[in-house]
Amino acid sequence: MNIVVWNENVHETRGDETVREHYPDGIHAVVAAGLEARLAPGADGADGSHPAHGQHASTHTVTTATLQEPEHGLTEERLADTDVLFWWGHIAHDQVADEVVERVVRHVHAGMGLVVLHSGHYSKPFTRLMGTTCSLKWRNDGERELVWTIAPEHPIAAGVPHPIVIDRQEMYGEYFDIPRPDEEVFLSTFAGGEVFRSGVAYRRGLGKVFYFSPGDQEYPVYHHPDIQRVLANAAQWAAPTGPRRQLTADPHPRDWFTDEGARRQGV
Amino acid sequence: MNIVVWNENVHETRGDETVREHYPDGIHAVVAAGLEARLAPGADGADGSHPAHGQHASTHTVTTATLQEPEHGLTEERLADTDVLFWWGHIAHDQVADEVVERVVRHVHAGMGLVVLHSGHYSKPFTRLMGTTCSLKWRNDGERELVWTIAPEHPIAAGVPHPIVIDRQEMYGEYFDIPRPDEEVFLSTFAGGEVFRSGVAYRRGLGKVFYFSPGDQEYPVYHHPDIQRVLANAAQWAAPTGPRRQLTADPHPRDWFTDEGARRQGV
Amino acid sequence: MNIVVWNENVHETRGDETVREHYPDGIHAVVAAGLEARLAPGADGADGSHPAHGQHASTHTVTTATLQEPEHGLTEERLADTDVLFWWGHIAHDQVADEVVERVVRHVHAGMGLVVLHSGHYSKPFTRLMGTTCSLKWRNDGERELVWTIAPEHPIAAGVPHPIVIDRQEMYGEYFDIPRPDEEVFLSTFAGGEVFRSGVAYRRGLGKVFYFSPGDQEYPVYHHPDIQRVLANAAQWAAPTGPRRQLTADPHPRDWFTDEGARRQGV
Amino acid sequence: MNIVVWNENVHETRGDETVREHYPDGIHAVVAAGLEARLAPGADGADGSHPAHGQHASTHTVTTATLQEPEHGLTEERLADTDVLFWWGHIAHDQVADEVVERVVRHVHAGMGLVVLHSGHYSKPFTRLMGTTCSLKWRNDGERELVWTIAPEHPIAAGVPHPIVIDRQEMYGEYFDIPRPDEEVFLSTFAGGEVFRSGVAYRRGLGKVFYFSPGDQEYPVYHHPDIQRVLANAAQWAAPTGPRRQLTADPHPRDWFTDEGARRQGV
Repeated sequence: MNIVVWNENVHETRGDETVREHYPDGIHAVVAAGLEARLAPGADGADGSHPAHGQHASTHTVTTATLQEPEHGLTEERLADTDVLFWWGHIAHDQVADEVVERVVRHVHAGMGLVVLHSGHYSKPFTRLMGTTCSLKWRNDGERELVWTIAPEHPIAAGVPHPIVIDRQEMYGEYFDIPRPDEEVFLSTFAGGEVFRSGVAYRRGLGKVFYFSPGDQEYPVYHHPDIQRVLANAAQWAAPTGPRRQLTADPHPRDWFTDEGARRQGV
Repeated sequence: MNIVVWNENVHETRGDETVREHYPDGIHAVVAAGLEARLAPGADGADGSHPAHGQHASTHTVTTATLQEPEHGLTEERLADTDVLFWWGHIAHDQVADEVVERVVRHVHAGMGLVVLHSGHYSKPFTRLMGTTCSLKWRNDGERELVWTIAPEHPIAAGVPHPIVIDRQEMYGEYFDIPRPDEEVFLSTFAGGEVFRSGVAYRRGLGKVFYFSPGDQEYPVYHHPDIQRVLANAAQWAAPTGPRRQLTADPHPRDWFTDEGARRQGV
Repeated sequence: MNIVVWNENVHETRGDETVREHYPDGIHAVVAAGLEARLAPGADGADGSHPAHGQHASTHTVTTATLQEPEHGLTEERLADTDVLFWWGHIAHDQVADEVVERVVRHVHAGMGLVVLHSGHYSKPFTRLMGTTCSLKWRNDGERELVWTIAPEHPIAAGVPHPIVIDRQEMYGEYFDIPRPDEEVFLSTFAGGEVFRSGVAYRRGLGKVFYFSPGDQEYPVYHHPDIQRVLANAAQWAAPTGPRRQLTADPHPRDWFTDEGARRQGV
Repeated sequence: MNIVVWNENVHETRGDETVREHYPDGIHAVVAAGLEARLAPGADGADGSHPAHGQHASTHTVTTATLQEPEHGLTEERLADTDVLFWWGHIAHDQVADEVVERVVRHVHAGMGLVVLHSGHYSKPFTRLMGTTCSLKWRNDGERELVWTIAPEHPIAAGVPHPIVIDRQEMYGEYFDIPRPDEEVFLSTFAGGEVFRSGVAYRRGLGKVFYFSPGDQEYPVYHHPDIQRVLANAAQWAAPTGPRRQLTADPHPRDWFTDEGARRQGV
């Protein structure tokens, strides 16, 4: 499985103090390191999970890409070879080239997994794939967030405590203007009383999309072992189950499906 | 309730023979007339429905708009006053101005209902709101379509036979690349053996979206009384339940909701 | 619309102090009075809702029934004439006769609406209709509950503030073992930090089921005007759209549907 | 993974001719053999699937159980050791002891997977878990069934042609009175024109339930390699992701979750 962690990397490169303190090499570096650690063979990722259903022994590659690279580091070649793309953006959504956004969306439709993090709710790829405004309420008050599992059998919740406790975090609150999720995995509450659908899953074409809200640039959330566990689970869940394939509208003559070859080409 | 029936009106204006035969004044004229007839007070729309839950006695206005009008007939003022917009398009999707598309999408997010018809599956407003390719299989062979109700308690299926029989129609077949519907109301089968999710409902922001596939320019489907019944039901279902409102991402100070006025502003 | 409010009426009849203080004539009396008031023509139920889409002018009848009556007040005749049944139970679930439970479930399948309140999550009709354990976490600490709308276009949320504030209430927390809801309308948070899916909607056969958790015997929750608004909305939402009808498995000869009469019999 | 294939085994033991022809050792024997073959390491189960995401190398055990055995072969000990239970029943649903049904349902709630086949739609475990009548339309005319994939990214559809062609099969048609599925994987059409939601997935408690309609006692459907592929996929999908666990309603003191041990106990 090839994972690419994309970060706009603007808070970091312009030198925001708090961000550099928690993420001296960028948020992407910490997210990637967490994935590496949790997906490594023998990693402590399966506490609570059934012994008979351990992790795949397959190898994983985790690399990073940023806004500042040519084509934002997301060339056609690279996306074609990416199984799951993680996306972190906040203050530079507008700087992401539409051409790259179309490319990302096209690869999701063709089967690539996408995990959108925190303020990425307003990113171009996510709003394109959702079709809603993705607006929400917010407050940056460094308050406690509790992440509750409401789909205990879901693979993204495997090995995760109930609730995950994040001591300090930005508040994201409802109404969160997203389509009704295909699967709701987590709900978050905040010390101030608000609630948020913090872990939601969708299918878009042949690709899977997971949005996970915990993780702000001002708090060390991506160093949290339970959050890393969620991200590793999400990567495994979002990985494609078949080859990349463009979906098109084609005429089909009557009885086309009596030919086995035609049937085997897939939907 | 103000209903606007939009039609690209290209098959008609360029003089396609079959279309002009079935729809001499345009597809929009027949759809609008059907809505007028079925939504009129006392209309025979409630066969099979509970006597205690008859139709609203409210008045309805049905008007039409086409691609050829300035701003395609969909100005800001007009959309602001539209409760439900019907959309028929086929060969001129690309000619719809992006600015008008954004306007339509914005009004759906703010509460306007949208009913997308047949080949409108590939229209700009629909694909924007879905976030998928909306591709499908097709064959124009004039074959029988049966429309089966799988949500018998759904208001869009009220008074509709099981199945609706359409003698001649274009085939639309799965895989139909749409997001998992919030509600599936109808499934269609075709004489050739294919199946299609022909009546599917979604929420997008504060607006409701219904896609209904029966209805091709080469067949007189919109003259069919059961199809007209579905469209009238869809108009009533899609009508907004509250005032038009833009959803935005706003900061909220701690305990903002202890103020009743703030709570009453809505989500 | 005929509404029946059912209550086990055991806390009240055995003389629990707090219950009698808030509900001297029983919880059912207050629920029924609230429904009467909110469903009355001209009632202030539409604040925030679109002027064009006011309430039906139809008349409503609200009566009550209790465990202590013969057949618990739920005879075949009475259920046949009930559009929506409200259910409140807590410590006497086991005393409800299986025969009556089967009758209630059968009428829901045939189209009757059912609104299950608070501790009714463990009632026989609800667990039968859900097929899960319906277990949850709880704490009776008289703490603040906030009820957040996450389906702002849903009719059950019409005219409801965001959030509803309940000053003192029992805590119900996740994991709530229910099937994935067809529609999630409300999420609740509690002062202690827990979260709960407090307003969830399902279809079962031809009937609609709504579960709403706010409302404990020790707190005056059913006197709360916003809670009464939710219950009145739920009654309107759950009301059947067609005549009561038993669903059965029947053989159908080939081409049965070419007969219009057969088609018109419904699904 | 331990799989148990349960069969009422009544058509076979009473000597129905056609059944004995296709299934001389019982339907369960053929279903079990198909699972064995398709789940074996190196089995041709992944055509079309991504090379990086092959099958688990874990070992599988497939055994059978029938109505005629003591406790129908489904003792507490055996179910406790069963990961996925397959269920085939038709004319003897009533002969299944309620105690055994309760046991099966309890194990599903606690995490056991359940795959219900064909006429099992009317079995006690399935109707208990669904909460609906599970009624449908039917006709035994030996007509062609086409099984179309509408969730191409779903693991149960991996390696399956589009459509699967079954030359002769009993017709099952809508309206199928089931709860709205969590996931719809397959839709079937029949030569006579009917449609059926033939592959639907649910969560019930910690357990997963899949219903798959193809497979009648009078036709050799379970010998069909594509059908065997679906059943093998369903077994892998339905397998629990964590240890068996009873869900109960417990009081939780304020701040219980500040104790890590309490959080780690799971939902």
